[in-house]
Amino acid sequence: MKIKVLNEGYVKLIESWGKGESGEPEAGIIEAARQSTQGSFRGWDKDEKLLSYLYEHKHSTPFEFCGMVLEVQAPIFVFREWHRHRTQSYNEMSARYTALPNLNYIPTEERLFNTSTTNKQAQGIAPLTKKSAKTWLEELALFYDTVETLYQDALNSGIPKELARIILPVGRYSRMRATANLRNWLAFTTLRSAPDAQEEIRQYSLAVETILQETFPKTYSLYQQFK
Amino acid sequence: MKIKVLNEGYVKLIESWGKGESGEPEAGIIEAARQSTQGSFRGWDKDEKLLSYLYEHKHSTPFEFCGMVLEVQAPIFVFREWHRHRTQSYNEMSARYTALPNLNYIPTEERLFNTSTTNKQAQGIAPLTKKSAKTWLEELALFYDTVETLYQDALNSGIPKELARIILPVGRYSRMRATANLRNWLAFTTLRSAPDAQEEIRQYSLAVETILQETFPKTYSLYQQFK
Amino acid sequence: MKIKVLNEGYVKLIESWGKGESGEPEAGIIEAARQSTQGSFRGWDKDEKLLSYLYEHKHSTPFEFCGMVLEVQAPIFVFREWHRHRTQSYNEMSARYTALPNLNYIPTEERLFNTSTTNKQAQGIAPLTKKSAKTWLEELALFYDTVETLYQDALNSGIPKELARIILPVGRYSRMRATANLRNWLAFTTLRSAPDAQEEIRQYSLAVETILQETFPKTYSLYQQFK
Amino acid sequence: MKIKVLNEGYVKLIESWGKGESGEPEAGIIEAARQSTQGSFRGWDKDEKLLSYLYEHKHSTPFEFCGMVLEVQAPIFVFREWHRHRTQSYNEMSARYTALPNLNYIPTEERLFNTSTTNKQAQGIAPLTKKSAKTWLEELALFYDTVETLYQDALNSGIPKELARIILPVGRYSRMRATANLRNWLAFTTLRSAPDAQEEIRQYSLAVETILQETFPKTYSLYQQFK
Repeated sequence: MKIKVLNEGYVKLIESWGKGESGEPEAGIIEAARQSTQGSFRGWDKDEKLLSYLYEHKHSTPFEFCGMVLEVQAPIFVFREWHRHRTQSYNEMSARYTALPNLNYIPTEERLFNTSTTNKQAQGIAPLTKKSAKTWLEELALFYDTVETLYQDALNSGIPKELARIILPVGRYSRMRATANLRNWLAFTTLRSAPDAQEEIRQYSLAVETILQETFPKTYSLYQQFK
Repeated sequence: MKIKVLNEGYVKLIESWGKGESGEPEAGIIEAARQSTQGSFRGWDKDEKLLSYLYEHKHSTPFEFCGMVLEVQAPIFVFREWHRHRTQSYNEMSARYTALPNLNYIPTEERLFNTSTTNKQAQGIAPLTKKSAKTWLEELALFYDTVETLYQDALNSGIPKELARIILPVGRYSRMRATANLRNWLAFTTLRSAPDAQEEIRQYSLAVETILQETFPKTYSLYQQFK
Repeated sequence: MKIKVLNEGYVKLIESWGKGESGEPEAGIIEAARQSTQGSFRGWDKDEKLLSYLYEHKHSTPFEFCGMVLEVQAPIFVFREWHRHRTQSYNEMSARYTALPNLNYIPTEERLFNTSTTNKQAQGIAPLTKKSAKTWLEELALFYDTVETLYQDALNSGIPKELARIILPVGRYSRMRATANLRNWLAFTTLRSAPDAQEEIRQYSLAVETILQETFPKTYSLYQQFK
Repeated sequence: MKIKVLNEGYVKLIESWGKGESGEPEAGIIEAARQSTQGSFRGWDKDEKLLSYLYEHKHSTPFEFCGMVLEVQAPIFVFREWHRHRTQSYNEMSARYTALPNLNYIPTEERLFNTSTTNKQAQGIAPLTKKSAKTWLEELALFYDTVETLYQDALNSGIPKELARIILPVGRYSRMRATANLRNWLAFTTLRSAPDAQEEIRQYSLAVETILQETFPKTYSLYQQFK
């Protein structure tokens, strides 16, 4: 399952867990919760109610018994926000060791006019005209070309990779694997799908939600219901 | 896979993960590490060397991409030490909600003479005779019977479960599920299989090691080699 | 500042921090938050509003820039719940190394009839009479005496401390130091002052709140307002 | 205490803690450790030995009872490595809300020839000549000027701040406050002062060490001795 995000990015499911002993998806949550009373998983017809009870009353630890690994390609400024989530594990492409591929984030023209209204500070300091928007997008494309030329020249002339990279803009794409348990993936989407999150990471968060819905449908539907 | 520990305890593997995209056990580690250079898993004939390099040079984050869930039955004093490991997730039987089964830890006579020599403070304050040891073991068995009678009487006379339990000794067994990633399971066994750990948790840690060896054989063999 | 809790316990403030560069209590929160816009602390007449905004909109990381160390004496079953909070650091008295003092939790008679009504499972399995309550409290006192005698005998006859302790009941008091940042102390009290928490840890949590109110009055008042 | 790092960066001590009840710097470590045996701080003439024992035998939790807050100005690529340390708390300047000041990292000529020899991958793909080095440094300065012009133009023409920033290179400086306990600051410097760390974050790590030496001299001297 791989979902395209922005102009060059994606989120891809690598692996998930949480079947517990019974082998039923998400049953690991019920089995963990039933430790407290010596019981086990009884089938979803009986246990859907318990799952709902756990979720609604914020008994969160059983949801740490499921999890998933994702692969993500996103601009560096998106990863800068993502990595503030300290309960995930990350392994990211390193420009110290390999030249980053020439993939760069170019927003759509529509996006330039569509800044969060709840976050006034994120907006521009002047009204944006259609003409200025077009001009900036053209300059942006040229700028990315200039950066790539300078980067390749530096690498070819022997500048160390770990220094040649300092000119790479935060709009450049990088790639990573991230792993977390279900409780923490839901904490991530709660913050990053919110309307005051920056639109770009919101798109990634919504892609993560699509994968959660497919992978952990019962828990995801409770997340939708109680958010 | 279920391993008996002490007189009434066990460690049981519930679930593990870390196959990554390639579906090969432990390959998730290699795939995560290769994010840094845009590569993927190439087969163990080629990648065993990389795994060894990662382990030896303490590149630890890729080992967070595997993990396992265990079920553990152990005396409360063992859980008290176990739960100090803050990178695991726990769900334990709760004596607030259910009467704890009448299972109690009784050490072997041999164990009474076999205290850690590296931890002098843990030893007795007088030399122990064979007779005293036997006497104490008999008293211990009687004591556990007394506790159980008192506990059942309290429950039957209407003392709230959450208070009736306050007489239960830390030698009483409880049960839990615990989940952690591979890096943190190895941190657990590193501390708890060490000679200065209390013998009882050491037995549990060695059982965890047996499961690690079966579930993540390549990483476990590196753990053995470099410890 | 030391607050008595239950019959033999206490919570005591050892140390707190969060004055930032300006040296004003709690100003570290404002200074951390102002990093995002290059500003600094301007005085509470101006910054009380920002503090309130941060709290209300769950901008939680600035509240990680304050914190405090507490010393706590509490029964083991309270510590068992407390230690599930994985964002605190603990150092507790160890019965491996020192004989635990003969301090034991004895609930009041009133408490036996005052079980959480929201947590039916925690209640007794039969109606409790005044007479049964009295009887149990007498048996409990005798039981603690029996334990202490057996414990001292074991220690004196040379049973290793780390094994002699296995008879100690979870109603026995232990002692610890705990340190956490302000965000996580508030997460602790949010869960443990709630009506479905067991009454004993609730009493400790309320004592922690009294110390929070004294030490971080502005943040605590927001906690009260928005809970 | 403020230490200049690289061409435009710094590390500055904001606040520290760990005096415990006795009010003696670093005594909080001893007091926490002594919880296990019911003792307290006895004065450094007697307790220096205990501190050394704790450090040498990796009894790490007492070192979580000290800590410090730092303010750091550093290039974005340094923060990208720094933020992988998940046990610290961060608040960083946000280019969503404020234009980043025009401060950019320019390595010295010497630095270009001084790449880690232990990390061959970080090196250039060709031998570097003195002439190429000079040329690149000139191009770099011009590039930073171009970026700044483009950035200011975008902001002035009404491009939202959160998008105008995507051209900012990872060599641009940002600023943050970071807080962690002493155990985790030492884990940070252990990794980041090592010879295989990138030179730029190494410079920051060495500055952190200078502050640690001043603030926690006894623990720092053990760190030096046992590393």
